[in-house]
Amino acid sequence: MLINIRFEEGEVKFIDCSSLPNKIRIIKTKNPDDIVEAIRTMKIRGAPAIGAASALCLALAANYFEYKDKEQLKSILNEYSNRLIKARPTAYNMYYAIERIFKVLNRTGINEVKEEILKEAIKICEEDINANLKIAELGSNLIEEGDAILTHCNTGALATVGVGTALGIIAKARDKKIKVYVTETRPVMQGSRLTAWELEMLKIPYKIIPDLAVGYLLKKGKVNKVIVGADRILQTGHLINKLGTFSIALIANHFKVPFYVAAPTSTIDLKNKLEDIIIEERSREEIIKIKRYYIAPKNADVFNPAFDVTDPELIDAIVTEKGIIKRPIDEGIKELISQKT
Amino acid sequence: MLINIRFEEGEVKFIDCSSLPNKIRIIKTKNPDDIVEAIRTMKIRGAPAIGAASALCLALAANYFEYKDKEQLKSILNEYSNRLIKARPTAYNMYYAIERIFKVLNRTGINEVKEEILKEAIKICEEDINANLKIAELGSNLIEEGDAILTHCNTGALATVGVGTALGIIAKARDKKIKVYVTETRPVMQGSRLTAWELEMLKIPYKIIPDLAVGYLLKKGKVNKVIVGADRILQTGHLINKLGTFSIALIANHFKVPFYVAAPTSTIDLKNKLEDIIIEERSREEIIKIKRYYIAPKNADVFNPAFDVTDPELIDAIVTEKGIIKRPIDEGIKELISQKT
Repeated sequence: MLINIRFEEGEVKFIDCSSLPNKIRIIKTKNPDDIVEAIRTMKIRGAPAIGAASALCLALAANYFEYKDKEQLKSILNEYSNRLIKARPTAYNMYYAIERIFKVLNRTGINEVKEEILKEAIKICEEDINANLKIAELGSNLIEEGDAILTHCNTGALATVGVGTALGIIAKARDKKIKVYVTETRPVMQGSRLTAWELEMLKIPYKIIPDLAVGYLLKKGKVNKVIVGADRILQTGHLINKLGTFSIALIANHFKVPFYVAAPTSTIDLKNKLEDIIIEERSREEIIKIKRYYIAPKNADVFNPAFDVTDPELIDAIVTEKGIIKRPIDEGIKELISQKT
Repeated sequence: MLINIRFEEGEVKFIDCSSLPNKIRIIKTKNPDDIVEAIRTMKIRGAPAIGAASALCLALAANYFEYKDKEQLKSILNEYSNRLIKARPTAYNMYYAIERIFKVLNRTGINEVKEEILKEAIKICEEDINANLKIAELGSNLIEEGDAILTHCNTGALATVGVGTALGIIAKARDKKIKVYVTETRPVMQGSRLTAWELEMLKIPYKIIPDLAVGYLLKKGKVNKVIVGADRILQTGHLINKLGTFSIALIANHFKVPFYVAAPTSTIDLKNKLEDIIIEERSREEIIKIKRYYIAPKNADVFNPAFDVTDPELIDAIVTEKGIIKRPIDEGIKELISQKT
């Protein structure tokens, strides 16, 4: 099994998603700065992977620097938390992981704190592995024999610590003679670069489509399920996910094709309202060139939001490790939460 | 004024659209094979430009080869017509241009035929210039002060012989303080490579967006008109245009944003039914790499249709040089045709 992010021999090891599919490059580091930079430059991406990497980043920071007391450590971890959030402000799993690490920091004495933070970070990774497995199991029941499934962006092993969320479900259902349509996912091409690469390894038949082929494909009746991941799910059921998810959900809804979301509960944000969410806007460079080759005028202006917002009415179900949330989504979330506590 | 395609000093001259925006490369040729190849490789693209270039291709062929009689010439022109259609089977303007050239061939004696065919090809080019101007004039009345207009693909001077269709309207309305959102238009990037380049020259403010940002943009109320071109319009009002047009029309319709089409009447196909139309599927290479850089696994499977079909119910108006066709679109087309004859 492919494991993207892990703590091993005192180091964090991860696959550099930015160099795939051309090169499989494993990065190893003890330096928390490298994790911040890897998240910023999308070497590590995918909300669950970002969450796990953020926890490991703080664990590295607690080990990398010298400090006299907990106040000093707290100030170091605060600085790294802020830098992580600044690097990619949208995925909720990062806030969730940071909060868990700070809880450990607050309750643990100076002698054990370094070790306890590392334990907690590793626990967050392991929980993601287990959540992925449970999501795959529950979600694969939604897949029928011979389904043609459309997915967007990358939600597989490269986006999580385990088998993935939406792509984990697809992998689990592989014996049902499914085929998969993969959107390219401009501008960073997580669909064609990463999801296609994972599907090759899984030996599941797939076709890459240009992002705006979705309407034509669904109109021709070529797709009977859509499954995507999530960067943040609000209590109201609003889904914040990779740019394009909303357009796809709207089109799926028009053609009455079920639209499913797969995400661990660490993605669910019970604190913030839609108007408080920062939708990250990324650089011009992602749009105007690929490597050194310009695909637009050099001084072109762009609008490059990394995410969009999908209304709960467009979502048929959300598969979490604690169960499947059905419509109405907001009530389903409320019910799931009351089970949790 | 930028003129993309022209006949000058015994040669056809055109701008190589495949090398923009990195290089402005003018190709000059007397060899009809070069025109077929330029159309196949999208050095020449855009339905009206393809139509004009096809007529000029046949005029070059009539001049390039030796033949004893009209039967021999007819067989040469038949061969080139078939090769042109094989290169890009979808745009109707090509069939329209070929038919016009064959009418001249059939009615003209061997002594004048070469000259008459060239005259007809040049006439087709001039008619496109005039149709563009008229479309721009009529269409610009649909644009209001301060409009934010979304356009897809490239429909400007690079796609026609004149000022363009949809982009011609935008250019004509530039004094109305408009701004333009340009879809990248994967996979060939006619939006970011060509439309952005033309808008730079026209000094009209624009932003390039990833193709699937359309839903998010319209939801945020950032767009109040959509204007696209056409590769073929059927008598029923079905619009065959660049892949993605249908998804955009569906989203525009959902948000009640007017969706306009701009095209010369040479794009209107009165002969064929929807089920007879061949939607060109293009190569894997367009999807899996950019220049020599792979953005997908090397043996990835793709679905790469160049066009899609938009239902007439989603179209608010079609701007032609003979007038604006309003809803119901099929009746509007019938009326326009009866005026013509």
